[in-house]
Amino acid sequence: MQTKPTLAQRAQHLPFSPIRKLVPLADAAKARGIEVLHFNIGQPDVAAPKEALDRVQQSHMDLLPYGDSQGPLSYRKKLCDYYQNHGVHLTPEDILVTTGASEALSFTINTICDPDDEIIIPEPFYANYNGFASAASARVVPVVSKFENGFELPPLELIENHIGPKTKAILLCNPNNPTGYLYREDEIRTLGAMAQKYNIFLIVDEVYREFIYEGGSHFSVLAEEEWAQNAIMIDSVSKRFSMCGARVGCLVSRNHEFLNLTLKLAQFRLSPPTYALMASEAALDAPASYLEDVRQEYARRRATAIEHFGAIAGVEISIPKGAFYSIMKLPVADAEDFSKFLLTDFNLDGTTLMLAPANGFYSNLSLGRNQIRFAFVLNSEKIIKGAAIMKAALQSYQAQES
Amino acid sequence: MQTKPTLAQRAQHLPFSPIRKLVPLADAAKARGIEVLHFNIGQPDVAAPKEALDRVQQSHMDLLPYGDSQGPLSYRKKLCDYYQNHGVHLTPEDILVTTGASEALSFTINTICDPDDEIIIPEPFYANYNGFASAASARVVPVVSKFENGFELPPLELIENHIGPKTKAILLCNPNNPTGYLYREDEIRTLGAMAQKYNIFLIVDEVYREFIYEGGSHFSVLAEEEWAQNAIMIDSVSKRFSMCGARVGCLVSRNHEFLNLTLKLAQFRLSPPTYALMASEAALDAPASYLEDVRQEYARRRATAIEHFGAIAGVEISIPKGAFYSIMKLPVADAEDFSKFLLTDFNLDGTTLMLAPANGFYSNLSLGRNQIRFAFVLNSEKIIKGAAIMKAALQSYQAQES
Repeated sequence: MQTKPTLAQRAQHLPFSPIRKLVPLADAAKARGIEVLHFNIGQPDVAAPKEALDRVQQSHMDLLPYGDSQGPLSYRKKLCDYYQNHGVHLTPEDILVTTGASEALSFTINTICDPDDEIIIPEPFYANYNGFASAASARVVPVVSKFENGFELPPLELIENHIGPKTKAILLCNPNNPTGYLYREDEIRTLGAMAQKYNIFLIVDEVYREFIYEGGSHFSVLAEEEWAQNAIMIDSVSKRFSMCGARVGCLVSRNHEFLNLTLKLAQFRLSPPTYALMASEAALDAPASYLEDVRQEYARRRATAIEHFGAIAGVEISIPKGAFYSIMKLPVADAEDFSKFLLTDFNLDGTTLMLAPANGFYSNLSLGRNQIRFAFVLNSEKIIKGAAIMKAALQSYQAQES
Repeated sequence: MQTKPTLAQRAQHLPFSPIRKLVPLADAAKARGIEVLHFNIGQPDVAAPKEALDRVQQSHMDLLPYGDSQGPLSYRKKLCDYYQNHGVHLTPEDILVTTGASEALSFTINTICDPDDEIIIPEPFYANYNGFASAASARVVPVVSKFENGFELPPLELIENHIGPKTKAILLCNPNNPTGYLYREDEIRTLGAMAQKYNIFLIVDEVYREFIYEGGSHFSVLAEEEWAQNAIMIDSVSKRFSMCGARVGCLVSRNHEFLNLTLKLAQFRLSPPTYALMASEAALDAPASYLEDVRQEYARRRATAIEHFGAIAGVEISIPKGAFYSIMKLPVADAEDFSKFLLTDFNLDGTTLMLAPANGFYSNLSLGRNQIRFAFVLNSEKIIKGAAIMKAALQSYQAQES
């Protein structure tokens, strides 16, 4: 037998994405003719701005050239206008355009962390944060935010207690994926002051900024210039404009020493994708009504999900104030096993659900074992159908277990 | 004064891209109204396949969804047909579609190397290999291939002497960027056997496969199944189809344990860009005459470059057998200083050149100090004009120096 070369320990220990690891089971279900409703992934079904798609259709290119590693100046200028409308004053030099928020996160962690450095993140957190940190040999230090408290920021002393010589940053997602929590202005201000006090970064992933419910308001990490050298903001067109497949995001900071280092990484990968940049720039020409309509649509879906999933016996919902996710507690011991059951052993009239088991959003896999992340990205009709499937599936699963 | 958070040592020590570090000087020249001929970067000016661009223009999407992290099955199937035409039999499971060859390289190094692990690379080499390795805390171990020998593979004993317990792979670019060297079948076979003997990987970046001159033929690392578990091939649509801005490449290996680990990294970044995937898949529908015409065009440019740059007193050209690069020795002590001079202090009738100083392609910056990498990616007329500018600039530079 042929021996195989050994692979890296680091790579072997990387986690699989909780959002995607059940994909083979979903594919198998589809192959059996089952319709799968994807509540596992934050992939909206609402239309992207017409301006964006039209721009690409009307493109007249002879070839696709490399672009500026930092992103086109014209796009960075338009992004400044967009942020100005949110009360954040920036210049194009504060922005590095990336291949999705994913790349922005990866660049950030690689630029601020040496191997074994630490990043404090309230958990549950977007699982790929851990992925990017692990890939950079950095370590996520979780502080638990609790279902019982609606996932608000953990007590500040708890966060402060975790800051040590290896700590390089505190990382938040606001509004939060996977919890839907919207951080209050005072929470962001306190963390900003803490970052300044300890001379570390405060990184905030604000890709869900536009999706806020119940009249709440979003306070950007860049809104306060006092801690400008400590603040890093991550952004993306994926959710805002239903352009997840574009792969365009950005990294924003007034700390140019930081941005200059990320530019090295940006140069290695040459430039973000051409067509997607066109679409992203044109999306900013959409009228203000576009985003308002989208927000209202998600508000309806959120209400539908709360009503219909909340009516299922034993299901508890953490009410989201922003983004389009909610953590739900299910009346099962192991939500991952139940999620697999939905794909392998269950369907209601030929349809089933795909869910994201929430344990993968905790660094401690024993936490959140009876929780799932639900993405209310499909239309209300599908959400209602989804709730009916969930109800029937729970009965069937519980019957099978007992 | 506000103190700033510290940045990672690793990031601070990363090299700047030799291809892009002079970009600010080129931008400044353009701002002064100077035309800059870009011979510094492998960005072709030949047209992309009409099939690819038409496909995107005719797209009718309502939104841009995430795709499969491994890349669309339909595209991977068509890639199998493409490789079959090159005598390499593959299945779609052997392929992971990436966001450019850049990402394929980054995934590969991150999957096979732990911090401090080593990769042996004949130098000069594509500078970003070092960038990706450094970003992964891995180390490039260079073995020098020489201008005098046309940059052929260094003696095998030299390579073998560098293999130690930390060695995880030998990495080649074939045909070579930046030298234009085409590795012979016996060279690839010897390295394949060596990889098998030492239980390491042989990674070959074959993005220039289609551009071979003087009747030479390309031997793929995947052509021999004997060392299948050791072979990794990197590919991209960028150069082949003049779609550098698409950002679509792939990672190909029959070692599925390796590919499965890279899939974790692929899942972190979700999926490659939608429009670019469409264009890349459609590009494979271009008639065979497309690539043959492109090859002939580069062959003409190569001949023009050899003739006109070769005629400049003191300029020595390493004759390329493949790709579209050539290393040139210039009659100056410091080719980087001369490259800057071209952008800051020189123009001929309002036009100047941008070159890539070759020292950045060597890990030892003192090597190749009087060399540049010349990319014959612009049309013959511009190459002739470029040679005239080079001749005049050398005279002016030498006069200034003395």
